[in-house]
Amino acid sequence: MRELRVIGIGPGDPRLLTLAAVDAMQGVDAFFVLDKTETTPGAESLVDLRRQICEQHIRGDHRFVEIADPPRDRRPDDYRAEVLRWHAARTEVIEVALLRELGDDGVGAILVWGDPALYDSTLRIVDAIVARERLPLRVIVIPGVTSVSVLTAAHRVVAHRVGEPVHITTGRRLASTPPDDDRNQIVMLDAACTFMQTAAAEDEIWWGAYLGTPDELLIAGTVGEVGERIVRTRLAARERHGWIMDIYLLRKP
Amino acid sequence: MRELRVIGIGPGDPRLLTLAAVDAMQGVDAFFVLDKTETTPGAESLVDLRRQICEQHIRGDHRFVEIADPPRDRRPDDYRAEVLRWHAARTEVIEVALLRELGDDGVGAILVWGDPALYDSTLRIVDAIVARERLPLRVIVIPGVTSVSVLTAAHRVVAHRVGEPVHITTGRRLASTPPDDDRNQIVMLDAACTFMQTAAAEDEIWWGAYLGTPDELLIAGTVGEVGERIVRTRLAARERHGWIMDIYLLRKP
Repeated sequence: MRELRVIGIGPGDPRLLTLAAVDAMQGVDAFFVLDKTETTPGAESLVDLRRQICEQHIRGDHRFVEIADPPRDRRPDDYRAEVLRWHAARTEVIEVALLRELGDDGVGAILVWGDPALYDSTLRIVDAIVARERLPLRVIVIPGVTSVSVLTAAHRVVAHRVGEPVHITTGRRLASTPPDDDRNQIVMLDAACTFMQTAAAEDEIWWGAYLGTPDELLIAGTVGEVGERIVRTRLAARERHGWIMDIYLLRKP
Repeated sequence: MRELRVIGIGPGDPRLLTLAAVDAMQGVDAFFVLDKTETTPGAESLVDLRRQICEQHIRGDHRFVEIADPPRDRRPDDYRAEVLRWHAARTEVIEVALLRELGDDGVGAILVWGDPALYDSTLRIVDAIVARERLPLRVIVIPGVTSVSVLTAAHRVVAHRVGEPVHITTGRRLASTPPDDDRNQIVMLDAACTFMQTAAAEDEIWWGAYLGTPDELLIAGTVGEVGERIVRTRLAARERHGWIMDIYLLRKP
């Protein structure tokens, strides 16, 4: 049976790799990478970073297989339907690659930024491949440090006050968080800086971009004090780098 | 200035230590451990596990300083007030230990299970020490793998469906989660198995205990199918080990 290792490698700093991830990278025949250079700005440097991590930690040979990522409509009328269609197309190309590139007892791996359980589609694709039953596959998942933990560590802040819940959501969903759950929110994928619409001036925000990399940016304060500065900093950084990955913790007083 | 490193070490499996955590463990003059053996069953084995991790990864000498944990009322009338009182008592004993055990430029460290930002009070205590201004302190936080990530990796499941939020809460708060936010809940510290009261029979649950250790227990299914089995398994395991650490993901269909 083929084996596929889905390995969380943390959100950017190669030192945030776990010992278990380094173990799991050994004995892999092929590392599969979805090549998003056609569709996503900055993807090239992310692929390079994966190669560097492998070169640094793998004893012996290893092989990279780049799979062209199917195109995706970023502004669809039906968001969920488009994501499902795109995942189906990805499932197909990855299944074909696993069949073609691995022997019957071959070991493949996919390196996932952050942790495979949080806003990453790799495990959904793998489930779809297993469900199709055309390719018997043993799946192993190695957890990784999330960008949530790197954000809070960089700001030296706990994600919640004593005993309170934490709500992890996306920019797209932020406006629809129920009133009681907006006490401590971690917000990902918010290209529109939605907090400028939803948050009160006295809400506290801890913002970070390019976390764990030499380009790391951190801003903290109340939304009234630092909100505009985050918007400006974000825009300028995205222009300079061609891409941005950012995240923030938003807290009601 | 004294330096204190607050280091996330993951929730149990020593291989889930990051390379950054191993780096941060070097050059530490004293590792501070709150000795909870008086108050918490199982605490002894957790202190031992920390010692083993240090012995395995530290080149050169290192010293462990055990601090007796102040007593805590586990069933107070006012939960929040009792936690605050207890944190103040802890702040006092830890400040005294940092002053006594470290030289003026000494480096101390506290190893935190999981990640310092999630349901851990170390950073709150450190903030209180800094705020008192009796002890100038440089604080460095190293993020760790959370038990949330280890749970989802063990079950090979994503924490949410496409684009949905994730709500992290405690057993104590579970009954008060607003209706819209119960789609994907991660529940910690639920000694009372509150899901048996709050969840519907068709809700899905992924439960895990002693995650990442040789004693790991995993159960998944609908609450109707496996709920009673989780309650029984949890009870028997706690009796056998004298303590239990467990967590679950609960999802509405």
